[in-house]
Amino acid sequence: MQEQVINNMKSLGIDMIKKAGNGHSGIVLDAATMLYCLYAHHININVNDPKWPNRDRFVMSAGHGSAILYATLYMAGYLTKEDLMQFRQIDSRTPGHPEVGVTPGVEASTGPLGQGIATAVGLALGEKILEHRFVTSKGESLFHYHVYVLCGDGDLMEGISYEAASLAGTWKLNNLIVLYDSNKTSLDGSTDMTFTENVRARFEAMGWDTELVKDGENVAEIDRAIAKAKKNDKPTLIEVQTIIGNGSKLAGSHEVHGKVLDDEDIYQLKGKWGIDHEPFTTLPNTENMFRAEMLKHTKPAYEEWSKRYQDYHNEHSDLSDLDFIFGKKKEIDLLKTPFSFMMEEKEATRKTNATFLNHISREIPYFIGGSADLSTSVKSYIDRGNDLTKDNYLGKNIWFGVREHAMGAILNGLALTNFQVFGSTFLTFSDYLKPAIRMSSLMKLPVIYLLSHDSIEIGSDGPTHQPVEQLAMLRSEPNLNVYRPCDGKELLGCWNHILKEKEKPSALILSKVEVEQLATTSSEEVAKGAYVVRKENQYLHGILIATGNQVHTALRIATKLYEREKLDLRVVSMPCMELFLEQPKEYRDALLPKGIRTVVIEAGSSFGWHQFVYNSSYLLTIDHFGASGSRDQILKKYHYDYKSLEERVKKLFL
Amino acid sequence: MQEQVINNMKSLGIDMIKKAGNGHSGIVLDAATMLYCLYAHHININVNDPKWPNRDRFVMSAGHGSAILYATLYMAGYLTKEDLMQFRQIDSRTPGHPEVGVTPGVEASTGPLGQGIATAVGLALGEKILEHRFVTSKGESLFHYHVYVLCGDGDLMEGISYEAASLAGTWKLNNLIVLYDSNKTSLDGSTDMTFTENVRARFEAMGWDTELVKDGENVAEIDRAIAKAKKNDKPTLIEVQTIIGNGSKLAGSHEVHGKVLDDEDIYQLKGKWGIDHEPFTTLPNTENMFRAEMLKHTKPAYEEWSKRYQDYHNEHSDLSDLDFIFGKKKEIDLLKTPFSFMMEEKEATRKTNATFLNHISREIPYFIGGSADLSTSVKSYIDRGNDLTKDNYLGKNIWFGVREHAMGAILNGLALTNFQVFGSTFLTFSDYLKPAIRMSSLMKLPVIYLLSHDSIEIGSDGPTHQPVEQLAMLRSEPNLNVYRPCDGKELLGCWNHILKEKEKPSALILSKVEVEQLATTSSEEVAKGAYVVRKENQYLHGILIATGNQVHTALRIATKLYEREKLDLRVVSMPCMELFLEQPKEYRDALLPKGIRTVVIEAGSSFGWHQFVYNSSYLLTIDHFGASGSRDQILKKYHYDYKSLEERVKKLFL
Repeated sequence: MQEQVINNMKSLGIDMIKKAGNGHSGIVLDAATMLYCLYAHHININVNDPKWPNRDRFVMSAGHGSAILYATLYMAGYLTKEDLMQFRQIDSRTPGHPEVGVTPGVEASTGPLGQGIATAVGLALGEKILEHRFVTSKGESLFHYHVYVLCGDGDLMEGISYEAASLAGTWKLNNLIVLYDSNKTSLDGSTDMTFTENVRARFEAMGWDTELVKDGENVAEIDRAIAKAKKNDKPTLIEVQTIIGNGSKLAGSHEVHGKVLDDEDIYQLKGKWGIDHEPFTTLPNTENMFRAEMLKHTKPAYEEWSKRYQDYHNEHSDLSDLDFIFGKKKEIDLLKTPFSFMMEEKEATRKTNATFLNHISREIPYFIGGSADLSTSVKSYIDRGNDLTKDNYLGKNIWFGVREHAMGAILNGLALTNFQVFGSTFLTFSDYLKPAIRMSSLMKLPVIYLLSHDSIEIGSDGPTHQPVEQLAMLRSEPNLNVYRPCDGKELLGCWNHILKEKEKPSALILSKVEVEQLATTSSEEVAKGAYVVRKENQYLHGILIATGNQVHTALRIATKLYEREKLDLRVVSMPCMELFLEQPKEYRDALLPKGIRTVVIEAGSSFGWHQFVYNSSYLLTIDHFGASGSRDQILKKYHYDYKSLEERVKKLFL
Repeated sequence: MQEQVINNMKSLGIDMIKKAGNGHSGIVLDAATMLYCLYAHHININVNDPKWPNRDRFVMSAGHGSAILYATLYMAGYLTKEDLMQFRQIDSRTPGHPEVGVTPGVEASTGPLGQGIATAVGLALGEKILEHRFVTSKGESLFHYHVYVLCGDGDLMEGISYEAASLAGTWKLNNLIVLYDSNKTSLDGSTDMTFTENVRARFEAMGWDTELVKDGENVAEIDRAIAKAKKNDKPTLIEVQTIIGNGSKLAGSHEVHGKVLDDEDIYQLKGKWGIDHEPFTTLPNTENMFRAEMLKHTKPAYEEWSKRYQDYHNEHSDLSDLDFIFGKKKEIDLLKTPFSFMMEEKEATRKTNATFLNHISREIPYFIGGSADLSTSVKSYIDRGNDLTKDNYLGKNIWFGVREHAMGAILNGLALTNFQVFGSTFLTFSDYLKPAIRMSSLMKLPVIYLLSHDSIEIGSDGPTHQPVEQLAMLRSEPNLNVYRPCDGKELLGCWNHILKEKEKPSALILSKVEVEQLATTSSEEVAKGAYVVRKENQYLHGILIATGNQVHTALRIATKLYEREKLDLRVVSMPCMELFLEQPKEYRDALLPKGIRTVVIEAGSSFGWHQFVYNSSYLLTIDHFGASGSRDQILKKYHYDYKSLEERVKKLFL
């Protein structure tokens, strides 16, 4: 009977792809049995309470397998047949690749390979933290759930999956169970060409348990492997050997990967399955049987949790600590806190940032984060936060190792668990982070990226460590705010705004260079993205726009040129271009009036700055790689030292 | 005696860092012995012929260890003491991280961790190809050299090193020998926190041989491991257990990683070593002894090769096939080849590209490349080129698997061996490639990136697969040309220009959407970056700038608006913004005269386009993520279908 249900899931998947005119048939036919096992026998969810915080999470890392996932979610009761018929259509609940927030039951957006499994490591880490944080007086954890992943060969080839898996081993995330759809095939052909390693041995070397299921259609075998995995004290990789496009005429060939099956093939498949040829037909009682199977484990699990929650409720008069798990975040107003006494007269914003980070950590219990092995340099360590380790999941400092990409995806997983998270590295290495930042933006997760060493000014480490084009890369990312504050007050304003963001990640750019606390900067004004830090005295001769350390330069130049030449310049600090562009036209036009000569000073790429100036000659930016040398040597070499900049500005105005 | 030499290498490294005022002392003190072994006993180079094509290659993947590398290169005779004294100073031959082209003996720029070892995989693959390609009638290979790498824990944590190592195993690159400086320490602290896997077991699972040297100061042990590795039929990882900062007061602590040792520490070290406290002192005869040791193996190796080369010379009257190895590339003029008959009236540029790719491959024997598992989709397979495998290194199609990042770095390694290389994936996944593209640009390597599926127009795969901001990301990269041709003729012009680039990588953006071959496009004009594809009839009312498929839209709009409204618009195709910006001012001003209303139509981010328009309202671009749906549905949703665009243009002009 369960075979019938599985065949019907396959049949729906094939029908969806046929109707849409595109999609991935190969995985539909090889992974249906795994999904059946997972949902019918293991995954604890409640269709009537889709956000149940103790639900198991499932991540389809092989996101191109969306059709079979949606067929399963239909069986589970999350989707309707109409949803399935709308597969890959605009504004449907069944998009081409799974999108969190669009489809009930989808826990993470996937598609770019490798990131799903890495995000799942974040989800599993999130569970561990909750599990150890919320415990009843009987010693029972309020939270206890599993994170399941289905991934393919492509996922495991991607470096990010290795990075994340290595961390999962170090952290002993035994709540993580990965089903590896081992069909020995990727888009271009057999993995004999590309992926000949012993995958299980590799995972064992990384501190995982592994299981092998030789027949991907054998429900009992898969069940047994999952049952065993649940008892492990390590994360588990279950290699399930399958045949891509199983049953189709193209079975075993890479050609079936992204193909719509032809009519004849669908006809023979449905004949074999005994399913009516009318598309989207389900055999009688299929759905009911699937749901009845599911309820056998989900119902007691949900009831048991409800009881546990009641116990916890009875023991704790104040449940506000749990608020964040339900998406209700603590609001804090940093602007009401007098921080000035904590700041040195002159210090790098990375240093000032450490003060704020520690303060916020004390205010927000679910504020955690870490670094890709640069906490010492970015100064992003939470002093009294302890380290998160396999023996202490309540530590607030996460050690990601030199793994920027996995850090981003793991932060995404933690953010999906409603933690407020940050991750740090050098701005230049945001290159390594880019694919994960894109997923933060796409999933609308308020992840905070702390990126220090913000320009060629860092000096002697040389061009590999000197960011140039990274600010442009980040600013061009949709749904991401990029902040580059010029002193402690602005930095505070940035943090205040960042913590209010609920659906937007932030990149906070920090300096290694020491900066003064300026008299005219404002924490409040940061929310407008840009504002005046030097108002012209009488006649507005021109405007200097600057960010970060260049605000100091701009102010000094403006002061000098006024004293010496009576040139009356307005200086605008623009800590966040995105926020400024969102301001009402009146504000924008008042700050940067049309027809006034405007110059931009930023130690980074000109890309994106033209919108504020008349032409490229007004952009005092840097469009080439840096060099190794002392800060002074480098700035002089590129005519970016104070004297050269003053001269360059002067020439533009006089 | 050799201990004295090693101590003196350490001493020079420490002096360099002290003089520079910054640098990485930890690795200087733990890796000197390995570098001594490598250079004194194994690496075949000729200081008088630094570009000797059969030289062994060494890559310092742990690029922060530059001081000890430079001290070694000084010992070998590549650098002078003056060079060492200039460590980390501007325009010196001893920059903060190794830079190829700056320092003789440096084979690859390194610093961003993980990329060095991946680049070395490319170097090793390059050797294999040369080895099998050039053989004397006696069956002797003209080329036979090893690629050595020194890497640290940080390198091995990075996903890219895993990706590349997995490929090295699949390709059986037994000429690759990696010394793993296993000091159990990274910048932030002990690897107990971050890197607990069994590294050797992992490499064995990937098809590597491994060796363990328990004492990183034991020359004989290291020598024995290297000697064994040379005989392996697999790549070899030698784990050399070391103590970071060995001998210093801070030995074994992460604090010594990026530190300048204090005077007292240096004093005690030099005392222990018996070296004079005057900075940059070398013990008598140290250099001579080092060089004498080196010559024992390098001299016969060089002589033997010279003989082999002479044999080969005698057998082959025409040696032009070897030209590329010496940096002399074949010049071909694609514009003289009549391709038009090969192009369908309407076809996707990815399809037209396949025709050109195959043609170029026939013309240029050292033109090779591959795909990150998307050759089928990008259509980047060389039809009669065979596959590169462990059994056939002469195949021209490289299967990288789903490993974009390693693909980029391996291409860099092949380009450093003077191959003309390309790699393909979807434009949206250029995110994964970004760090390697940056290194192509920085190292000035003419790597060609083929990036198809160029906009939200790809349709139903949804936002994870639809590029939006990637064009901006790539265009903001220094020293990279980004091409987005609109039809076959332009594509040909792009290729013609790309193949002439000797010091610049290229990104060639290809469409999945079918496009017509336009009457007014030109292959020749591509070299100017932008040119007129529709000249105004009489009065220039305005200009439409477009790229790729949007050129077709712009032309249609211009024609329609002229017919209906007598609005006379010039249409400018801009296949390469970078090339256009390099044109003389006269050309730029003539093409886009000041004061003429100009509109940009490109299905991608507005970022970077403001320089050509009056304000943002003239940018018909896309600054948000896409969606899953049919192409028509998506375009309509975002008012980017033809009708909407015509309406939007009309509104801007009328």
